[in-house]
Amino acid sequence: MSATGTSGVVVQKYGGSSVSTAEKIRAIARKIVDRSQSGDRLIVTVSAMGDSTDDLIALANAVTGPDISPSLREMDTLLSTGELVSSTLMAMAIHSLDQDAVSLSGQQAGIHTNAIHGSARIASIDTGRIMRELDAGRVVIVAGFQGLGETGDVTTLGRGASDTTAVALAAALSAERCEIYTDVDGIYTTDPRIVPGARKLLEIGYEEMLEMASLGAKMNPRSIELAAVYGVPVLVASTFDDVAGTLIHGGEPTMELRRAVTGIAIDKNVAKIAVRGVEDRPGVAGGILQPLADAGISVDVIVQNTSDDGTTDFTFTVGEADSQRALEAVKRQQSVRFREAVEGSDLAKVSIVGTGMQNGPGYASTMFTALAGAGVNIDMITTSEIRITCIVHRDDVPSAANALHDAFELDRTD
Amino acid sequence: MSATGTSGVVVQKYGGSSVSTAEKIRAIARKIVDRSQSGDRLIVTVSAMGDSTDDLIALANAVTGPDISPSLREMDTLLSTGELVSSTLMAMAIHSLDQDAVSLSGQQAGIHTNAIHGSARIASIDTGRIMRELDAGRVVIVAGFQGLGETGDVTTLGRGASDTTAVALAAALSAERCEIYTDVDGIYTTDPRIVPGARKLLEIGYEEMLEMASLGAKMNPRSIELAAVYGVPVLVASTFDDVAGTLIHGGEPTMELRRAVTGIAIDKNVAKIAVRGVEDRPGVAGGILQPLADAGISVDVIVQNTSDDGTTDFTFTVGEADSQRALEAVKRQQSVRFREAVEGSDLAKVSIVGTGMQNGPGYASTMFTALAGAGVNIDMITTSEIRITCIVHRDDVPSAANALHDAFELDRTD
Repeated sequence: MSATGTSGVVVQKYGGSSVSTAEKIRAIARKIVDRSQSGDRLIVTVSAMGDSTDDLIALANAVTGPDISPSLREMDTLLSTGELVSSTLMAMAIHSLDQDAVSLSGQQAGIHTNAIHGSARIASIDTGRIMRELDAGRVVIVAGFQGLGETGDVTTLGRGASDTTAVALAAALSAERCEIYTDVDGIYTTDPRIVPGARKLLEIGYEEMLEMASLGAKMNPRSIELAAVYGVPVLVASTFDDVAGTLIHGGEPTMELRRAVTGIAIDKNVAKIAVRGVEDRPGVAGGILQPLADAGISVDVIVQNTSDDGTTDFTFTVGEADSQRALEAVKRQQSVRFREAVEGSDLAKVSIVGTGMQNGPGYASTMFTALAGAGVNIDMITTSEIRITCIVHRDDVPSAANALHDAFELDRTD
Repeated sequence: MSATGTSGVVVQKYGGSSVSTAEKIRAIARKIVDRSQSGDRLIVTVSAMGDSTDDLIALANAVTGPDISPSLREMDTLLSTGELVSSTLMAMAIHSLDQDAVSLSGQQAGIHTNAIHGSARIASIDTGRIMRELDAGRVVIVAGFQGLGETGDVTTLGRGASDTTAVALAAALSAERCEIYTDVDGIYTTDPRIVPGARKLLEIGYEEMLEMASLGAKMNPRSIELAAVYGVPVLVASTFDDVAGTLIHGGEPTMELRRAVTGIAIDKNVAKIAVRGVEDRPGVAGGILQPLADAGISVDVIVQNTSDDGTTDFTFTVGEADSQRALEAVKRQQSVRFREAVEGSDLAKVSIVGTGMQNGPGYASTMFTALAGAGVNIDMITTSEIRITCIVHRDDVPSAANALHDAFELDRTD
C-alpha cells in the first residue's frame, strides 16, 4: 500500500476492551508472537485495561472532593500508570511464549510533548531506543496515551489518544502500516444498530474518515489528521475476529467501487441554542461565542438568518451535555444585546459524507428529497466540501438514516 | 535530637494500610497540611495503596501462567505504578486543602540505583529537584520503593522498601528526622498478642532495632542499617492515633531507663534441616550451603557438632516456606557426603535483645533458667553480641515469651 514505508515495520494498537483481562492479554500475545515470527518487526501500543482509567479518575475525584478539580499535572502521572500496567503485562505475556519483548513508557519510547497537561501534543519522537530494541530482536510494547513534557513531567494526550501514539510512532518510524485493533471489525457505511443494511467499508479516505469519526470505530480524530499529514495507512480491524477490516488511506481506491457518498454519520447527542432578535452589526457572532470558548464548550453547526425587523436570529448546536452551560454563558455575556435565548434539545445530526461529492451536483437535493419522502423535518442545514449535514429530531434518526442509506445505494457491493 | 539535621526538614513515610482508601488519604493530607503550616518543610514518602501491590503481582502471574516467573525488569515497572498512584492522589488531596504540593516518581526525585531489578540498592540521590520544590513552598510527595537503574529503566528496592526510600531521603537531605507512620503505634518489648504485659518502648538503638525488626513495626531491616550508617533518627508511630511512638536513634538513652535487655523478638515461621553423618573435612559447610544460596534461600541459625564416629552433624534453620526446597537442595548437591538429611518444622525462634548485654554476664543463664521453669525445651542455641536466640517448639512460644518478659522485668517502667 505504501511505497515509502520501512519494510516489515508495523505498528499495532490494542484498545482497552481488548486488554481488559489477563486471558485477553495472553490471547493477543499469542497473535503478536505468531506475527513476529512471520518476519514483521512489531511495535505494539496498548491502552489501559478495560475501565481502569475510569477507576483512577474516580479515585482522584474521591480524594479531592466534589468541588475541586484534581491538578492536571498530577492527573497525568496518575492516568499514565494504566498504560504502564497493560504494557508491562503484555511484555510478560510475550516472554512466556518464548519471544523477547520489552515495554517502554512514553518517556522511554522517546515521545516528547508540549507541557499542556491533559491534552498534550506530540512535539517529536526520538526513535533511538525503539530502533535499538527492534534491532535486538525484541517486540517493542509502548505505553499509549502518554509522553514526556518539556518540563520533565509525564503528560497525557487526551482520552482515546493511544490511537494517536500508534499513528505518531508509525509516522516517526516510517512504518509500512498502523493497525488499530478494537472491538468492532471496521468502519461501516453507517451505524449498523440503526440501519440493518449497513455495510463494512474495505477502504476509506482520511478526510471521509475524519467526518465519519464518530461512527463505529470511534477513532480519535487527531490520530486521523496525523495519519493524513504523514500518509500513514491505517487498518481498523477486530482484535479477536479474523475478518477483513477497513483500510484508511490517502491514495486512489484500490479494492472497491468508490462511490460519491461513502457513508452516513450520525450524532444523537445534539442540542441547539437559538438567540433571537440579535442586534445586527459586525462582531455579534464573536461576542456571543467567545464566552462559550472560554468555558471550553465546542460549538458545531452555526446558522444565522436576517429577520425583517433589522435584527438577526443566531442559532448554533452544542453537545447535549453542554447545553445548559452554553445557554447560561450566552445570557451572562454583556457585549451583544438580543431579545431572547432558548434551548432546543432532543436533536440529532445526520450527515452524508464522501469526497466524490466535491464536484458533483444533486447530492443535496437527493438528500432532502429522501428525507421528505421519509417524513423527516429538517431543522438546520450545514455543508462542508465533503459533507452535507441536517439537524433533525432525534426520534427521526432511524427513518432518516435508512432512507439515506437506500437513496445513495450504500448497501450495494458491486 | 540531632544537632546536624537541616532545620525544619522532615521526611515522613506512610505505609500501604495507611493509604488504602480515598478517605484515609484525605485524613493524612489534613495532617500533612497542618504540620506544613506549623513551619516544617515536608518530604512525604508513600507506599502503594492497601493490597494493590499484591493485586499487580497476581495479574503478572495470570498473564505469564503458572510455570514462568515474570521478567523482573517488567515487574519493576509494573509494581512501581502502585506508588505512582498513591503519591499523585496524596498530592491532589493536599491541593484540595489549599496547600501547594507535587508528587515525584523515584526517577524525578533523583533516586539512582544499581540495575538489580527486584532488589536494587540506592547508589545516590540527586536532591536538586526536591530542594527546588521545597524552596517553592511545596510539600514534596515521593513515590516510595522505586528508583532509576543505571540502564535507564525503573527499578524497585524490594518488598517493604518504602521505609528505605524514606530513610535514604532523610540522609541525603540531612533531615532532622525520619517519621515512619504505620498501623502500629511503635516498637514493643515483645509481641503484645503473645505477651499481654508487652510495653511500648519510647526509644531503642539502631542495633537492637535491627535484631527486633521482625516485631510489631515490621520495619525493613535495610532501612535501619541505613539509618544507623547516616545517624538518621527514625520515629515509628501510629498514622491515626495521636500517641507517642518509638524513636530509633544512636545516641545515649534520653527518655527512659536503659535496660540490659530491651525486648524479646519472636519468629514463628522457622524450620530446621538436620544433615547427619557428614564427612568431617574443611569446606563441608560451604558445600552444603552454596546450593541454598544459589536458590536464593536465606539460612539463619547454623549449628555444627562433632560426633564420636568422626562424622559431624550439621543443622541449620530456614524460613518455614523454604524448608522443602532447602532439603531438596541439600540432597541434590554432590560435593559433600552425609548419612541422612531430615527436615524439622513447627519451630520458632525466641530471642532476647539488648545492647547492654554485651558486657554483662548471666543473661544466658537467666534465659535458660526461665525457659526451663516454664517447661520449654530448647532445640538449638545461637548468640550474637547483643542477642541470645533459642529455637523452641512453636507451641511453646507463649510460655517462653511470657516467662522471659517476666524474668527480665520488661513490663517495668521505672
